Amino acid sequence: MNITIINGPNLNLLGTREPGIYGHEDFESVLKHLRQSYPNDTITYFQSNHEGDIIDHLQKVGFGDCDGIILNAGAYTHTSLAIADCIAAINTPVVEVHISNVHAREEIRHRSMISKVCKGVILGFGTDVYRLAIESFRKQ
Amino acid sequence: MNITIINGPNLNLLGTREPGIYGHEDFESVLKHLRQSYPNDTITYFQSNHEGDIIDHLQKVGFGDCDGIILNAGAYTHTSLAIADCIAAINTPVVEVHISNVHAREEIRHRSMISKVCKGVILGFGTDVYRLAIESFRKQ
Amino acid sequence: MNITIINGPNLNLLGTREPGIYGHEDFESVLKHLRQSYPNDTITYFQSNHEGDIIDHLQKVGFGDCDGIILNAGAYTHTSLAIADCIAAINTPVVEVHISNVHAREEIRHRSMISKVCKGVILGFGTDVYRLAIESFRKQ
Amino acid sequence: MNITIINGPNLNLLGTREPGIYGHEDFESVLKHLRQSYPNDTITYFQSNHEGDIIDHLQKVGFGDCDGIILNAGAYTHTSLAIADCIAAINTPVVEVHISNVHAREEIRHRSMISKVCKGVILGFGTDVYRLAIESFRKQ
Amino acid sequence: MNITIINGPNLNLLGTREPGIYGHEDFESVLKHLRQSYPNDTITYFQSNHEGDIIDHLQKVGFGDCDGIILNAGAYTHTSLAIADCIAAINTPVVEVHISNVHAREEIRHRSMISKVCKGVILGFGTDVYRLAIESFRKQ
Amino acid sequence: MNITIINGPNLNLLGTREPGIYGHEDFESVLKHLRQSYPNDTITYFQSNHEGDIIDHLQKVGFGDCDGIILNAGAYTHTSLAIADCIAAINTPVVEVHISNVHAREEIRHRSMISKVCKGVILGFGTDVYRLAIESFRKQ
Amino acid sequence: MNITIINGPNLNLLGTREPGIYGHEDFESVLKHLRQSYPNDTITYFQSNHEGDIIDHLQKVGFGDCDGIILNAGAYTHTSLAIADCIAAINTPVVEVHISNVHAREEIRHRSMISKVCKGVILGFGTDVYRLAIESFRKQ
Amino acid sequence: MNITIINGPNLNLLGTREPGIYGHEDFESVLKHLRQSYPNDTITYFQSNHEGDIIDHLQKVGFGDCDGIILNAGAYTHTSLAIADCIAAINTPVVEVHISNVHAREEIRHRSMISKVCKGVILGFGTDVYRLAIESFRKQ
Amino acid sequence: MNITIINGPNLNLLGTREPGIYGHEDFESVLKHLRQSYPNDTITYFQSNHEGDIIDHLQKVGFGDCDGIILNAGAYTHTSLAIADCIAAINTPVVEVHISNVHAREEIRHRSMISKVCKGVILGFGTDVYRLAIESFRKQ
Amino acid sequence: MNITIINGPNLNLLGTREPGIYGHEDFESVLKHLRQSYPNDTITYFQSNHEGDIIDHLQKVGFGDCDGIILNAGAYTHTSLAIADCIAAINTPVVEVHISNVHAREEIRHRSMISKVCKGVILGFGTDVYRLAIESFRKQ
Amino acid sequence: MNITIINGPNLNLLGTREPGIYGHEDFESVLKHLRQSYPNDTITYFQSNHEGDIIDHLQKVGFGDCDGIILNAGAYTHTSLAIADCIAAINTPVVEVHISNVHAREEIRHRSMISKVCKGVILGFGTDVYRLAIESFRKQ
Amino acid sequence: MNITIINGPNLNLLGTREPGIYGHEDFESVLKHLRQSYPNDTITYFQSNHEGDIIDHLQKVGFGDCDGIILNAGAYTHTSLAIADCIAAINTPVVEVHISNVHAREEIRHRSMISKVCKGVILGFGTDVYRLAIESFRKQ
Repeated sequence: MNITIINGPNLNLLGTREPGIYGHEDFESVLKHLRQSYPNDTITYFQSNHEGDIIDHLQKVGFGDCDGIILNAGAYTHTSLAIADCIAAINTPVVEVHISNVHAREEIRHRSMISKVCKGVILGFGTDVYRLAIESFRKQ
Repeated sequence: MNITIINGPNLNLLGTREPGIYGHEDFESVLKHLRQSYPNDTITYFQSNHEGDIIDHLQKVGFGDCDGIILNAGAYTHTSLAIADCIAAINTPVVEVHISNVHAREEIRHRSMISKVCKGVILGFGTDVYRLAIESFRKQ
Repeated sequence: MNITIINGPNLNLLGTREPGIYGHEDFESVLKHLRQSYPNDTITYFQSNHEGDIIDHLQKVGFGDCDGIILNAGAYTHTSLAIADCIAAINTPVVEVHISNVHAREEIRHRSMISKVCKGVILGFGTDVYRLAIESFRKQ
Repeated sequence: MNITIINGPNLNLLGTREPGIYGHEDFESVLKHLRQSYPNDTITYFQSNHEGDIIDHLQKVGFGDCDGIILNAGAYTHTSLAIADCIAAINTPVVEVHISNVHAREEIRHRSMISKVCKGVILGFGTDVYRLAIESFRKQ
Repeated sequence: MNITIINGPNLNLLGTREPGIYGHEDFESVLKHLRQSYPNDTITYFQSNHEGDIIDHLQKVGFGDCDGIILNAGAYTHTSLAIADCIAAINTPVVEVHISNVHAREEIRHRSMISKVCKGVILGFGTDVYRLAIESFRKQ
Repeated sequence: MNITIINGPNLNLLGTREPGIYGHEDFESVLKHLRQSYPNDTITYFQSNHEGDIIDHLQKVGFGDCDGIILNAGAYTHTSLAIADCIAAINTPVVEVHISNVHAREEIRHRSMISKVCKGVILGFGTDVYRLAIESFRKQ
Repeated sequence: MNITIINGPNLNLLGTREPGIYGHEDFESVLKHLRQSYPNDTITYFQSNHEGDIIDHLQKVGFGDCDGIILNAGAYTHTSLAIADCIAAINTPVVEVHISNVHAREEIRHRSMISKVCKGVILGFGTDVYRLAIESFRKQ
Repeated sequence: MNITIINGPNLNLLGTREPGIYGHEDFESVLKHLRQSYPNDTITYFQSNHEGDIIDHLQKVGFGDCDGIILNAGAYTHTSLAIADCIAAINTPVVEVHISNVHAREEIRHRSMISKVCKGVILGFGTDVYRLAIESFRKQ
Repeated sequence: MNITIINGPNLNLLGTREPGIYGHEDFESVLKHLRQSYPNDTITYFQSNHEGDIIDHLQKVGFGDCDGIILNAGAYTHTSLAIADCIAAINTPVVEVHISNVHAREEIRHRSMISKVCKGVILGFGTDVYRLAIESFRKQ
Repeated sequence: MNITIINGPNLNLLGTREPGIYGHEDFESVLKHLRQSYPNDTITYFQSNHEGDIIDHLQKVGFGDCDGIILNAGAYTHTSLAIADCIAAINTPVVEVHISNVHAREEIRHRSMISKVCKGVILGFGTDVYRLAIESFRKQ
Repeated sequence: MNITIINGPNLNLLGTREPGIYGHEDFESVLKHLRQSYPNDTITYFQSNHEGDIIDHLQKVGFGDCDGIILNAGAYTHTSLAIADCIAAINTPVVEVHISNVHAREEIRHRSMISKVCKGVILGFGTDVYRLAIESFRKQ
Repeated sequence: MNITIINGPNLNLLGTREPGIYGHEDFESVLKHLRQSYPNDTITYFQSNHEGDIIDHLQKVGFGDCDGIILNAGAYTHTSLAIADCIAAINTPVVEVHISNVHAREEIRHRSMISKVCKGVILGFGTDVYRLAIESFRKQ
């Protein structure tokens, strides 16, 4: 399988950013661990703080031979209708993930603009949400 | 691992109930499949249409040797503060699951009363959410 | 015709409960009168104060040879998404009835969770709503 | 009995207007059928697209020897406080009817301005709501 | 005096449940203490996690020789119109109590469905609310 | 002075309509009394149940030699943006009056669509509001 | 007649305060003019910027031989439930007045806390509202 | 092409009504100009201040050989569900137009009841919206 | 024990003010009765219609040897954040009381600004709430 | 005339993106057609998925010799106050266009952040909205 | 420069009141420090817990030779339209200050009634906001 | 001290953009003036119309030797949760500034997404807010 992981704003700070909420592990080690766990799958990774870059990248991988996209849109989850429109426009299924339990945080994080156009949502298990999302693409 | 699956109202009708939304598979075959996939785990199952029964059962398994509870509270997800209070009161982690993508349905299903007291949420992958929830308890 | 009447919470108190709103007649005499008026129809009756019991009973009669269900869900009309889901799941048409004119009472009674999945709604004619609901099943 | 049926805006188009919602039968045939079913009752009929005409007519029949008014106020149901005030002002009981199940349609149709001043409400049974409304005036 | 205490969902966990909010004392010791303080009164006790059971029990004691009911409806306080209807229907005065100061907690706990049909409300004094409620029935 | 009084829907029923709210006096006697009190002024009167008629009449008198318009728009006060637009468009000052204290009635009557484009508002003094409105045009 | 005029916060600045809204006349000249126009009536005057003073004064004159109170509560109109409670408690009728058309200003000024307990409301005629309020007490 | 233009309330005052918003040109000159610009098309015109008249006229032209309707419903745009229902019921496409930019005015003018059932919306270009609407019917 | 009772606006009118809601007993007799019932406690009393006076008095007694404050803030309960801030600032526990069942009255009285910073709330038992509040300070 | 067309996020996918809503034609052919229809005008085109790029480009063309800007801001229409601020800041008139009838879609698309600062709005005529917008700049 | 500092309710408790939010320094030392830092300016100080006193004082200094007013209205910031009206009425510019970051606290503190009529707002820097406000009056 | 000033969308147009609101001075001259006033401090400047660029820059300077960041996020203040998350993630204190008094403008500008994670807020003093923000970092 070809899997693309897209992380949104401030997720490049993982490991240093508010560790009480997001933990101490940086994403490079998460990614390394995933590639070890799924050696037969190709896992590509993209991060940007720019809403437009995320849309550009979703369009780039969303019409090709990618089997699934795992999207942690960070704060754009709650404000970006443009990303939602992009997910609806492309051909590849997208799984929405969140490291923290957004429903246990401020009210603005309870509403997701993108959930309804995603295949599914996985949230609150720390960085393990990426592994679970990969699992979701290998439904048995 | 000891895992308990609790299904809420109308989920006993799975397979016959609105198959366009919930699919044609009944829960017995889902359960059989899960037990085959995880032969070393004990998976117990409970279903009720009664909010009070769900609370009673959560209390019964929530203080013992159960390693994790998978809860599909059905419509009570959106109306029951009492189940939320119970989840907060017990010692065992609870994972909230939904077969359908509730965010793609009516607005009342977008708000969950219980998410904030659960360990995590997995929704929208059909009956595969139960397998993913089991996976979530075996974090690596 | 086989007709099932299901009454929800506190309707067992009919005749003693707030007679200014609900009248002085108890439901046994209503039922007796209906059976006299429709001698060729079988009218069965079920009452419970439990949301779960109402769901259980709707499921029990909703997949068999019952021609129509008359449901006065009482206060659950305004709070139970689970009963609404059950009505949507079963095969038998359900008519929602209310003895009082709920729209002339407090605002919370103006919103029904179940109307949209019922065949129709009849409200405000006192206990005569049960007769009118039976009439609705014999459309000419 | 003297019964007056008042139909509001666009109901003169019944049979041609959005038949998926309102059916293929025009109101003349509905009326003919009602008069055949209730040969001893006098059933008069009035339709207008004008809010003011409906008020004028309610006032005209509402203080005389009419036993009951059946009002399908169409879209004015949801916007006209003036019709509601008129119903409260006259002496004759009014039954509110709707052909479609308004609660299964857009949110603006879920709120009725007139229900609280009507004797009762009957909705969702197609054109059979007129027969049921006549029945409601002959309570036994 | 005959006093009935009714506790709602999760209050059977008192002493183990979120002790930071509800304290470490279980209800059996509270009850024992009350009976010692009021040796001439009969204090009966009922607890259930089922909304329907609470209604059944309110109906059972609400028409007899009980002088007063003390109701801690727990989470149902905020969601159950059916319990409110029951309190309005019975003959015995009901005092609403809460162990914690619900107004210092989440917003959903600020609104009570039942306050307006109760005789009075006492909240926030820990388990001492039960003693104060008994006192309220012996107004001087 | 030339004064025009315009009364809206259901105000032709004054004296018979809900006398607990509107009193027992009909408008003819109010008008007679006003003309006696202000013999040097010309007081013309117009009533209609039609929103469009009220607009037509406002336009007719609003560009001529009328010194002031007294408008009791009845229920249209709360729903008619079209009447508000008309008042803004004409040259003659309009005083909004209400016989009852609308703020002591249902919430929908607390909001007026037309107040902001009127010269002033007088409400709650029974039919004496018409005299006070005439007085307002003779400011000293 | 004995009439009391009570003016609320910032109305002591009349004539200098935002003359585009409130005009250039100070209240002393308004008062002088009123006393000249109604030489047989006793008109007393009280102004305060203190909510509590207004309540104290309403209580002082509200149980005696005052025939009517004219209250321009200024900004307290929109925020003071305590003044509303006082008006409801006293025996003397109160007329609410406003110099400006509050409905043509910011939204917070559209809602009055006190209207519903006043005899009537007169607003928007500049300082002439005081004369009209006196007129309202001499209904014919 | 046969085109019908329907103007709603107060648009007969165009040229005199609030010229800062609506300009100084009356509709007769607009119409003359349009007929000169489109000599091969038949352009008929109807104006009314009555909601019911607009519905009657939409029904009259909406089932015949009219190729397109241009509707400036004025204030009824924001309050009339009955006109919206009529547009949905007829066979002829309707284009909604507004002379002013309604979104730059009060909030109540930001919501249109009719947009969703119209073919399209053109607003804010002054009286040129009528020409643009004609253009829209001759899509190339 | 040293107890201070503080009564807010209009409570000096107790006994004469709206007796249907507040009863016929004035506060002097309530106070006399309390002092008789608790002869070993010092009960001081303060009443004011001024929000600022209540704050001044809370500050005066809130840092000294007072064991408990009983506050009936009257209408300020629902509007005064300043009193709430004061309660949070002082050292002495405050119990909020209301004579009437505020939840059975208008909606604005359902929200208390001060509950969350008080030790507890007692409401709806008539003037007996003062005795119950004293009892609450002598927890056993 | 010099006209600039700016298309926002996901409009580069026109022709492949949700053709049920946006049609099968890509924008290159739309543009080619427009240039053929208006051979004397210079039509330049810019598309970006980046909110910032759209602002940069509006600033670049908004102070020069461009006669008009046609902006289809896509999803940013509903979320971008920054684009609205930019339109207000530049010197060139902007016409807002939408291919689909946004008012017939989800509620979030009913509110435009930019309409009030645009010259006008044209929506719902498919890709013909670009031609109509060009027409709007050549007002006669 | 002549500067007046006005502090509202409970700010006399600075140093003892909730030091986690407001710090340990009392206002006397703040004032002393300011006077030392600005020896050429006259800094007068006023504090009151009474809304009316704050209005009285604003009026007293607001029409004279005071160059600027620094107002920390405390809780009245969020509830007092009367203070806002006073600020709008006087001639002297007012700067709104808050010691704590009100936007990081409860929602009711996010809305200020007075900001829009103040010259500017400075908040969240602890007691340093007073120095910054003085600086704001010496704009360079 | 090392200070970074970050200006958001459309602030590059300062001096030309809506001078009635933002003044005629461009930011280069503001910056020059600041550097002259604070010759011992290093003041760096960054402006972008891109939300993502602002986040990138905040991250770049937010973990180094910068002593304070002054952020005028322009319109993103009201819409960007991603910038707020970034401010919470970095180590350097951020002061929010606005040139205009945003509370005296449209309602959408009254709510800031970023205030609660900033050290403080300074607004409404024109371009002097930058000097005051520098002052805030040199607290004495």
